[in-house]
Amino acid sequence: MPEISQRAKHMPASPIRKHKPLEDRVRESRIEVYKLEIGQPDIPSPTQFIDAIRAFQGDVIGYRPSKGDDELREAQSFYYKRHNADIAPDDILVTNGGSEALLLAMATVCDPGQELFAIEPLYSNYIGFATMLGIQLRPFTAHLEEEFSIDGLESWLEKNHDQNLKGGIINYPNNPQGKILRQEEIDMLGKVAKEYNIFLILDGAYREFVFDGLAGKVTDLDLLLDIPEYVIVIDTLSKHYSLTGSRIGSLASKNHHVMEATLKMAQARLSVPTLEQIGATAIISENDAFVHESALEYQRRRDAAYEILSGVPGVHCYKPQGSIYLWVRFDGVDTEDFTRFMLEKFNHEGKTTRIAPGPGFYVTPGMGKDQARIAFVLNVNAMKEALNVLGKGLEAYRK
Amino acid sequence: MPEISQRAKHMPASPIRKHKPLEDRVRESRIEVYKLEIGQPDIPSPTQFIDAIRAFQGDVIGYRPSKGDDELREAQSFYYKRHNADIAPDDILVTNGGSEALLLAMATVCDPGQELFAIEPLYSNYIGFATMLGIQLRPFTAHLEEEFSIDGLESWLEKNHDQNLKGGIINYPNNPQGKILRQEEIDMLGKVAKEYNIFLILDGAYREFVFDGLAGKVTDLDLLLDIPEYVIVIDTLSKHYSLTGSRIGSLASKNHHVMEATLKMAQARLSVPTLEQIGATAIISENDAFVHESALEYQRRRDAAYEILSGVPGVHCYKPQGSIYLWVRFDGVDTEDFTRFMLEKFNHEGKTTRIAPGPGFYVTPGMGKDQARIAFVLNVNAMKEALNVLGKGLEAYRK
Repeated sequence: MPEISQRAKHMPASPIRKHKPLEDRVRESRIEVYKLEIGQPDIPSPTQFIDAIRAFQGDVIGYRPSKGDDELREAQSFYYKRHNADIAPDDILVTNGGSEALLLAMATVCDPGQELFAIEPLYSNYIGFATMLGIQLRPFTAHLEEEFSIDGLESWLEKNHDQNLKGGIINYPNNPQGKILRQEEIDMLGKVAKEYNIFLILDGAYREFVFDGLAGKVTDLDLLLDIPEYVIVIDTLSKHYSLTGSRIGSLASKNHHVMEATLKMAQARLSVPTLEQIGATAIISENDAFVHESALEYQRRRDAAYEILSGVPGVHCYKPQGSIYLWVRFDGVDTEDFTRFMLEKFNHEGKTTRIAPGPGFYVTPGMGKDQARIAFVLNVNAMKEALNVLGKGLEAYRK
Repeated sequence: MPEISQRAKHMPASPIRKHKPLEDRVRESRIEVYKLEIGQPDIPSPTQFIDAIRAFQGDVIGYRPSKGDDELREAQSFYYKRHNADIAPDDILVTNGGSEALLLAMATVCDPGQELFAIEPLYSNYIGFATMLGIQLRPFTAHLEEEFSIDGLESWLEKNHDQNLKGGIINYPNNPQGKILRQEEIDMLGKVAKEYNIFLILDGAYREFVFDGLAGKVTDLDLLLDIPEYVIVIDTLSKHYSLTGSRIGSLASKNHHVMEATLKMAQARLSVPTLEQIGATAIISENDAFVHESALEYQRRRDAAYEILSGVPGVHCYKPQGSIYLWVRFDGVDTEDFTRFMLEKFNHEGKTTRIAPGPGFYVTPGMGKDQARIAFVLNVNAMKEALNVLGKGLEAYRK
């Protein structure tokens, strides 16, 4: 029997998805599971999406242009304009979610064996895409205790930079840290990109979810002003529009070489689903209100979640300024083991809570064992219950 | 400004899609273009697909399992059972079209720098996926003059096999050749897979489109009987169900290592669109009649196309026994140049015809210059007109 490739063998299991079989078993025994492990919002999707799809009248559901529908790229360009980012429709490629956009961006920046820096704890699927493509991630570790500061990144890059480092992934508001960007950090990132002649892949999945009145002051898109040709911008409908199941995203760049190459990659996979693009076009141009309402709702959930968690003995967390995630350290707890305990051995009045254990969010081996990600994706009341159940579980686990 | 990767630079332009800007310009000057360059059928999609999507009632269009909906995998398993292929729902992964399934299969079989054999002329996007993944394709050339025989493949592999060769891509009924598999060829493929301990990736996109009463006698799935763990089966709704815009496909294997690794890759990209899976489930289980009717319709188109083309002086073609493509050699014609001529300089009574030039369907440099692919995707009357216009264009081009 032939052997599968090394990259296939080394594919990491998703820390977010690997406990699905355990959860299924728990549900079979009629225990309710609060799902805080995955960024699946409970906010109803905008109805214009499905309404536009329902209105489709063609006889044949055929291919669309590999680059994506013109109307959708125009809508996305208009969104960037509202952020003072000069990205034309032709600078945009529609993708199968932010996921495909990330895969194409990484393949465009790195050859096999080359490296991207990434700031851990990080969105774990970066590791999966890198592994598929034969790319190494070089981790800069940000610490909860230092409020995930990246002040040390510049000197770290000075030491860790070499010919093999081709770029970095920048994701703010950050999943899973909850940190947002400051102006000085934008300036520093522009400076290092130029100094080391590297690309920056900007994952903007949570760009609009910024709290405490800080929204719109600084965004990752500001890097376009300084280093337009060094930047590849990733977007997705998933979180902003509560449409994770639409799998519509985009890749954008002012660098024509990047756009030519990614279009060829996109031509190989032909096109993105026809109906989903029709739905996306209907919502993307004028739903700022929906997105801003959602941001306020997430702020309320953040407040509720942070208040409860920061009151639990032996639990440390960073108060997120954005995104939909809280990063937590549980003193003396192995979160892999604790997550299994919550699913296999614990329930409080017929309920338990699932979280995403920390190690899968790190590239550095051994990191994150006492840490976990909590997604504040449930409404305030459900969130409170879920975290109270988690607190009870923690007590039981410690005994 | 940083440089893009070598793999990005080497991405081939799709021979099927690269002339789209030219076509757009032609349409602006109100000339009608018969589109024979792309496998986009004009057969109406089954209405159950959109009807099932219209009936969706959820509030949130959320993620689905990375592996794909249970019901969809069960329907696909049932389809295989009708072909005497023992593929369980758990042996199946739902993918973003056959395209993603091919990408995942290739990444699972080969590390960067390793090789897959492929039989050229071939589906050009294999080259694109291989380039993205840093994989080399080692071409075995089949010839129109020899009716695309692969009798020489066994001895060619004996000479060309080494440790670096990890598998091969098998695509019958073949795009673009129109050739189907014979029993002796199945036996030979099983033998070489075992002898050289290599995977076979079976691209079954056109499996049901077999003509002249030969359907169902032998299919690529028969390889599962002999070498179940050496085989990865790729399927797609695109052609069988005239749903190219649905982007729903699948990857299946009896090899558990393959399924574990591809599931992890699928977890990284989260899931396949929710609504498209609902539509797919509605049609895939019981639409054999639709597929068989389509096959008969393609046979009629094949007959009409072959009759006209084989009567044009200086044109040679193979009479396809399956798929939806005719491979053509035009004596003394550079088909790249001729394709441009048809779009830029020629029309017959306000009409022209677009075809896919040959070189992009070969891995071997310099091959296919006088060859082209013609998709018989239009109804018989439109097909006849399109080819008559092509014939007039050829006359004009030769002058």
